[in-house]
Amino acid sequence: MLIVMNAGAGEGHVAGVTAAVAELGFEARAIPGAGRVAIGVVGNRGYVDDTAIMRLPGVDEVIHVTKPYKLVSRDFHPEDTVVEIGGLKIGAGQPPVVIGGPCSIESEEQMVAVAREVRRRGGHMLRGGAFKPRTGPHNFQGLGAEGLRILYAAGRAVGLPVVTEVMRIGQLELVARYADMLQIGARNMQNFDLLKEVGKLDRPVLLKRGMCASIDEFLAAAEYILVAGNSRVVLCERGIRTFETATRNTMDLAVVPLVQSLCHLPIIVDPSHATGNCRLVTPMAAAAVVVGAHGVMVEVHPEPARALSDGAQSLDFPAFENFMEHIDHYCRVRR
Amino acid sequence: MLIVMNAGAGEGHVAGVTAAVAELGFEARAIPGAGRVAIGVVGNRGYVDDTAIMRLPGVDEVIHVTKPYKLVSRDFHPEDTVVEIGGLKIGAGQPPVVIGGPCSIESEEQMVAVAREVRRRGGHMLRGGAFKPRTGPHNFQGLGAEGLRILYAAGRAVGLPVVTEVMRIGQLELVARYADMLQIGARNMQNFDLLKEVGKLDRPVLLKRGMCASIDEFLAAAEYILVAGNSRVVLCERGIRTFETATRNTMDLAVVPLVQSLCHLPIIVDPSHATGNCRLVTPMAAAAVVVGAHGVMVEVHPEPARALSDGAQSLDFPAFENFMEHIDHYCRVRR
Amino acid sequence: MLIVMNAGAGEGHVAGVTAAVAELGFEARAIPGAGRVAIGVVGNRGYVDDTAIMRLPGVDEVIHVTKPYKLVSRDFHPEDTVVEIGGLKIGAGQPPVVIGGPCSIESEEQMVAVAREVRRRGGHMLRGGAFKPRTGPHNFQGLGAEGLRILYAAGRAVGLPVVTEVMRIGQLELVARYADMLQIGARNMQNFDLLKEVGKLDRPVLLKRGMCASIDEFLAAAEYILVAGNSRVVLCERGIRTFETATRNTMDLAVVPLVQSLCHLPIIVDPSHATGNCRLVTPMAAAAVVVGAHGVMVEVHPEPARALSDGAQSLDFPAFENFMEHIDHYCRVRR
Amino acid sequence: MLIVMNAGAGEGHVAGVTAAVAELGFEARAIPGAGRVAIGVVGNRGYVDDTAIMRLPGVDEVIHVTKPYKLVSRDFHPEDTVVEIGGLKIGAGQPPVVIGGPCSIESEEQMVAVAREVRRRGGHMLRGGAFKPRTGPHNFQGLGAEGLRILYAAGRAVGLPVVTEVMRIGQLELVARYADMLQIGARNMQNFDLLKEVGKLDRPVLLKRGMCASIDEFLAAAEYILVAGNSRVVLCERGIRTFETATRNTMDLAVVPLVQSLCHLPIIVDPSHATGNCRLVTPMAAAAVVVGAHGVMVEVHPEPARALSDGAQSLDFPAFENFMEHIDHYCRVRR
Repeated sequence: MLIVMNAGAGEGHVAGVTAAVAELGFEARAIPGAGRVAIGVVGNRGYVDDTAIMRLPGVDEVIHVTKPYKLVSRDFHPEDTVVEIGGLKIGAGQPPVVIGGPCSIESEEQMVAVAREVRRRGGHMLRGGAFKPRTGPHNFQGLGAEGLRILYAAGRAVGLPVVTEVMRIGQLELVARYADMLQIGARNMQNFDLLKEVGKLDRPVLLKRGMCASIDEFLAAAEYILVAGNSRVVLCERGIRTFETATRNTMDLAVVPLVQSLCHLPIIVDPSHATGNCRLVTPMAAAAVVVGAHGVMVEVHPEPARALSDGAQSLDFPAFENFMEHIDHYCRVRR
Repeated sequence: MLIVMNAGAGEGHVAGVTAAVAELGFEARAIPGAGRVAIGVVGNRGYVDDTAIMRLPGVDEVIHVTKPYKLVSRDFHPEDTVVEIGGLKIGAGQPPVVIGGPCSIESEEQMVAVAREVRRRGGHMLRGGAFKPRTGPHNFQGLGAEGLRILYAAGRAVGLPVVTEVMRIGQLELVARYADMLQIGARNMQNFDLLKEVGKLDRPVLLKRGMCASIDEFLAAAEYILVAGNSRVVLCERGIRTFETATRNTMDLAVVPLVQSLCHLPIIVDPSHATGNCRLVTPMAAAAVVVGAHGVMVEVHPEPARALSDGAQSLDFPAFENFMEHIDHYCRVRR
Repeated sequence: MLIVMNAGAGEGHVAGVTAAVAELGFEARAIPGAGRVAIGVVGNRGYVDDTAIMRLPGVDEVIHVTKPYKLVSRDFHPEDTVVEIGGLKIGAGQPPVVIGGPCSIESEEQMVAVAREVRRRGGHMLRGGAFKPRTGPHNFQGLGAEGLRILYAAGRAVGLPVVTEVMRIGQLELVARYADMLQIGARNMQNFDLLKEVGKLDRPVLLKRGMCASIDEFLAAAEYILVAGNSRVVLCERGIRTFETATRNTMDLAVVPLVQSLCHLPIIVDPSHATGNCRLVTPMAAAAVVVGAHGVMVEVHPEPARALSDGAQSLDFPAFENFMEHIDHYCRVRR
Repeated sequence: MLIVMNAGAGEGHVAGVTAAVAELGFEARAIPGAGRVAIGVVGNRGYVDDTAIMRLPGVDEVIHVTKPYKLVSRDFHPEDTVVEIGGLKIGAGQPPVVIGGPCSIESEEQMVAVAREVRRRGGHMLRGGAFKPRTGPHNFQGLGAEGLRILYAAGRAVGLPVVTEVMRIGQLELVARYADMLQIGARNMQNFDLLKEVGKLDRPVLLKRGMCASIDEFLAAAEYILVAGNSRVVLCERGIRTFETATRNTMDLAVVPLVQSLCHLPIIVDPSHATGNCRLVTPMAAAAVVVGAHGVMVEVHPEPARALSDGAQSLDFPAFENFMEHIDHYCRVRR
């Protein structure tokens, strides 16, 4: 931690800060600068809350060097983590996985058709929403428990593991009965109680980045799960909210190599939500593979024009076939 | 709903869209334009999911005219809603309320001292966090149930109602036992299940705007609570996340008069979180009063330099006294 | 400047950085931390380019303490600057000024009508665009030199100084012939050559904040003008671009007190561009006065519905009268 | 254009709008909706300024269907434009080009070394800044005219065309004497007068996207150049400003296929500025190739740790060799 004093701060102010740092159990080292003094804090073993310091007279700014996470960090755990779901492995050294399926599970017929198609084209895992977080209460909210059963059955029928979102703690037991992997959606990335609870389970977790979450916050959210005991976490970049409205979100692809340098957990990309436009999904998924993503998650629907949600970004079967050809190609040739 | 065809769309495409609209039970009216055709949809009584349309050949864009909310809207309910908490009234025609207290409840001694000070200076309600949503798991997480008891006792001791955050459904019963008003925090604004549950209670709700929530999403979140049966909702602007890092968030003060024109619910402002800087809290609170906010929420701490969270933005007692003088002044003179 | 080494950095890396800092003529002081070492740089008299350091092996991050500006800073110049335009004074200790006028100068008749109205209601200065920066080339681009003459004449007729935008260096001489104050628009805030040229003139400058400019960048842009020799600069907050589209921009009102704490130049606010909505202009202007702005700039048009640009945010005469009543009121009662 | 009336608007209001539309020379067609009426405008041949309409009583919102550009649009010009610079071709059907060089031209020695390296590894064009737009006036501002001569000589020596930024109209003649292609930097994307002037030249233009420019604004900026007579424009995505500070900007890669669907001009990507981090440049450049970019622009420096600007994002020669191997590979295998 570095404490920057303002230009007018005198020796008394510096002494006050030094004393406050000492009281916290750390050592303060003054660094006289051009126009003002900075004070380095030495001896802390983790993130220090800056509250006590920030308010002292003469203090201009407090700069943190220590990150708000530890267990997820490569500093702490240098080796790559590979997450296993049934026999499927996600992570470094593994071929990128494709997780496909509809936004919402709408019927057994729909889900089975998609499952067969995903399986047939070489996808590795099924997705489908039974509980849906929708902006307004008047939108379709998902089939609930019935949807879970449909998803589970479709997965078992074609021999693929399934992932689905859990929105509340009270659903955890139910969802865990049917899902091979639990998804925490973007809107719940900082639902810390939910993170703590999935951290107590022995079940892989897919953690989506929040719409306006910084990388530090994203990794700190994963830290909640690891601290609670579950290190089988796969991160998912799904686009962030920016001023640009031409796409649903802005896909922040550079976080893939960046996160891989900071964190040992696998990271995949969801180009469907990131772009909101079925015409952009395949090129952006190929780009994700090329920058080193450990997988992609994609929305597939037998008839997107009749989908109950997210139709505009879902691939129909011919588009999904084309998608898989592209992904297979770039998986083969990527370096 | 308006469907905009792309420039190359032919009569067949227009016919396809017309048929799809008819199938949804609505009527389509073509509006030939300069370079392309637009199609108006007539007859819907609410928000129509655009999925079925967006994917049809020739369609370029779908523009919604109907909003994703209804019950919170002035179109539906023109009169202002005033929310009562005990004897306290928040809303149009009432004097602006001041809700003061520490970010986190840290001890009985701290909470009682703040309660007395808030009461003494003319504040109307107490705030204090017992369950704290913190970015990382290594930060102070709040005193929990013990904090609730302290808050409740302090409120009763000075005769002020209290508001505190509820973070999960499982806490609702406990929190409702002690709190006169339930706060939904910014990170939970789209925790839709939690919204539905507080909607079932007969208890006022303080709903904070999410860090990257648009006005439409903010109002749609409130709609979840009203649809579930609870219309005692007070909205709270607390700053949005932007590129600017000189302040903790960017206070979006223009939403106060904007929301008041769209929605009948009261709206207050939290300048502490919006700015993150105790030196900016008082002027921004005064500004909130002047643009017509129905109240302000402010962090007060007996010794901010020792606060376990948010010390940088908390007012100490002399600063709070000065704050109240300003607020009182602008309440008296506002037009 | 603080250099943060990564966790794996060894003594050799630290020695390398120390040597590089020495080569730049400064002194390096190591600050051993919990998991990693930080190195303070001592002895620099201004902003140091971090390029040479950032690339050395073992370096994780470089944190600047020194700001990219100096002359505009209160550290360097503690007293408030008051800018004079003719007899009019803008700045600390002066009553807030109102600068009113149309977005675009459209005709002599229009401009004279507005000038009379601004004068009659107590406004202090006239605005009007002769050269207009418009998103697309097919929009109205302004009357040019003819507009300047109209503006000048209208100002002289009613006895008010005038401000108008200059978009290019080649226009400077022409614009300076007619304008009492030169406006640099938001899109040109980082047109550094234009800043340097207005810095050579003895004419007050109104510098608008860029749509996505941070406070540091805003002040560094003003620094360009002061370095070139002109310290008669008035800053203007006019809203920033964020994800929120319900208003044209997001008015960042907290920068007013924040900038006043960092910088000695006057700062005014433009609620017309900040909100884009005539219904929000008056409350937000009142809020600006209350937080301490040294003035407000407002768009006024005799018939906004026929304005060639920005009609939606312009006040008609009755609205302007109401606006002035509000501003006068809050100028009188502000503390 | 679609005009949405508010819920309370009566027949009189609709009649008023209809009359105003007629006065503009267009036809209005009412579309009665669930709760309110919308009015379609028929007959316009281009973008209609909404000012006259927006202000009428009863109007809630005006939605534009027509874009603020035409000449750059595929609707108007369906075939891909290929831009030629000397013998080099940039655009659809051509192999992606690599434009390499230092951020700033610092010396003949430096520039020649880079030129040889770029040539040797198969790059197609040289870049280098002689006039530098820097945040603060105390940063290195470029070598100016001397830099241009150095760049030109280096390019001719190795047989590669050169591109460099022009910052002001007064520099155009000078820069055009030495540069094969003129770059308009991000900060000048809406320096409309500069756009108009480069539009009058017979010289290819590289137009960088502004830091907070929407796609519509980016294309409208290009429209300025085409309207003035110059259609040899290459667009360049270079990252946008968002809340995320872990990278210098957020690379918005999805705009590449999106722009290609809307516009016939070539588009390249600058991963150096988009990420600000030399470790992210190569993977993001490969991703750009894979999504169909017509080229990449990259910063190369013989000794980035001693660069006068942007060292943190510049590739040294071994990194550039590795970069070219990746790009060559992905150019060969892309589909």
